[in-house]
Amino acid sequence: MAEQHPFDVGIALEHSDDGTLRGRTDPGWNNMVGPFGGITAATLLHAIESQPDAHGAPLTLTVNFLAPIADGEFQVSARALRTNRTNQHWYAELSQDGAPKTTATAIFGIRRETWSDTELIAPDVPVPEDLPEPGTPRGVAVWIGNYDMRVIEGPYPGPDDGPSPSSLTKLWVRDRRGRTHDYAALTALCDIFYPRSYVRRAQVGPAGTISMTIYFHADSAELQSVGDDFLLGCARGNRFSNGYFDQSAELWSRSGALLATTHQLVYFKA
Amino acid sequence: MAEQHPFDVGIALEHSDDGTLRGRTDPGWNNMVGPFGGITAATLLHAIESQPDAHGAPLTLTVNFLAPIADGEFQVSARALRTNRTNQHWYAELSQDGAPKTTATAIFGIRRETWSDTELIAPDVPVPEDLPEPGTPRGVAVWIGNYDMRVIEGPYPGPDDGPSPSSLTKLWVRDRRGRTHDYAALTALCDIFYPRSYVRRAQVGPAGTISMTIYFHADSAELQSVGDDFLLGCARGNRFSNGYFDQSAELWSRSGALLATTHQLVYFKA
Repeated sequence: MAEQHPFDVGIALEHSDDGTLRGRTDPGWNNMVGPFGGITAATLLHAIESQPDAHGAPLTLTVNFLAPIADGEFQVSARALRTNRTNQHWYAELSQDGAPKTTATAIFGIRRETWSDTELIAPDVPVPEDLPEPGTPRGVAVWIGNYDMRVIEGPYPGPDDGPSPSSLTKLWVRDRRGRTHDYAALTALCDIFYPRSYVRRAQVGPAGTISMTIYFHADSAELQSVGDDFLLGCARGNRFSNGYFDQSAELWSRSGALLATTHQLVYFKA
Repeated sequence: MAEQHPFDVGIALEHSDDGTLRGRTDPGWNNMVGPFGGITAATLLHAIESQPDAHGAPLTLTVNFLAPIADGEFQVSARALRTNRTNQHWYAELSQDGAPKTTATAIFGIRRETWSDTELIAPDVPVPEDLPEPGTPRGVAVWIGNYDMRVIEGPYPGPDDGPSPSSLTKLWVRDRRGRTHDYAALTALCDIFYPRSYVRRAQVGPAGTISMTIYFHADSAELQSVGDDFLLGCARGNRFSNGYFDQSAELWSRSGALLATTHQLVYFKA
């Protein structure tokens, strides 16, 4: 039997008799506290995708992080709230011992050809092959080891870095072991960016996403054509105040297709 | 008895015996089909705010529009899913005859002073007093008459306008009858922008928000200091394809405070 890719292990769910789904945290996806938010978000999207009545492909997903997920088993429920002719609205919840830990709302839909244009301009950056391969991850967060991240601008602050007037990070990223980018993988990648406050202040400290929204622009064929190639991620903060900041980010294909735009609200201490 | 401001009539809710809230669509807030999405979003935020166990002030709100709201009565339920020390997670639903029409998730929280900075740069624009007052609204959408909107750039397309390479709209907006900007009013204003596809193509056609997310940056004191003054709104689309586009927008105070950032996914036909 072929071994499952670590990403698929991370988002794996089993159907149980009461109609809910059961999953289990995977140590390979650990963050500082609980699992990487991106794998949790991907798990919730995957829960919806794998429902027999799911209709169309993801258009948007909002994930709210209510409380840390403890190591071990969790339950996921996913419920279609409304099915229209061209779209479908979902509510999903990840819980442990009956307490909700993460919630998601999603809209799935049918895409049909219309007038189209990407107004946002793709940044001009060096190709990933011209950037150094990342070293062994520093071990702060285990999940980072699952990705090959090549930072162009706005790195995770090192001991010699000083404050920066800009929180902008540009990086190339792909799965280190070559998993293709489907909607679940893209969901996880939308949460790949370390807190923008770290980049601004060159200091790490308590910080965590409390809400993340994704707008999926790529249709299935476009995603498929990207395969497991590097994606270009760009992220910046808009306003930092009173313990919270918002981040806006984009994921681009190498050929310049805007695959997803994504936004977060992050709490931080500073 | 003092007459209620039209905005407060629009978001009014009555507590009923079964713990749900009852509201009623107001013809003064009509859009082409059903009420203006902004007033619906504000009603859901207001439903949460008015719960006796609400804790802190709004940090983020995501509203999904499932189906058109019919003229008449509706029910709203709001449920705290989790209360943490500094934040609280909510789920709210607006329904008619038992069918959900609009859902919302929100996070409320306590703000505490931290390092702060607005990284996004406020655009340099003329003051609202130097721009023409809007004429009588064209009557396409009744709700527009509730606002004094003064467009700086990217107007609603007129018969003589041609396609534009940019979907950017910049406008000043305030309540026409002088209502102060609290979180509910700010929520409605986040949905003030006509579809970005109209600006690009200089054509109106079927289009509607299917999901809207708001990050509230202003604390209560900052909002209070704005009073009922004009706010500067800027909105642009990132990618238009396959019947959907995303919009990113900001609301600024006249003094340059970034009060809210907000994002939408919009369906359109073209």
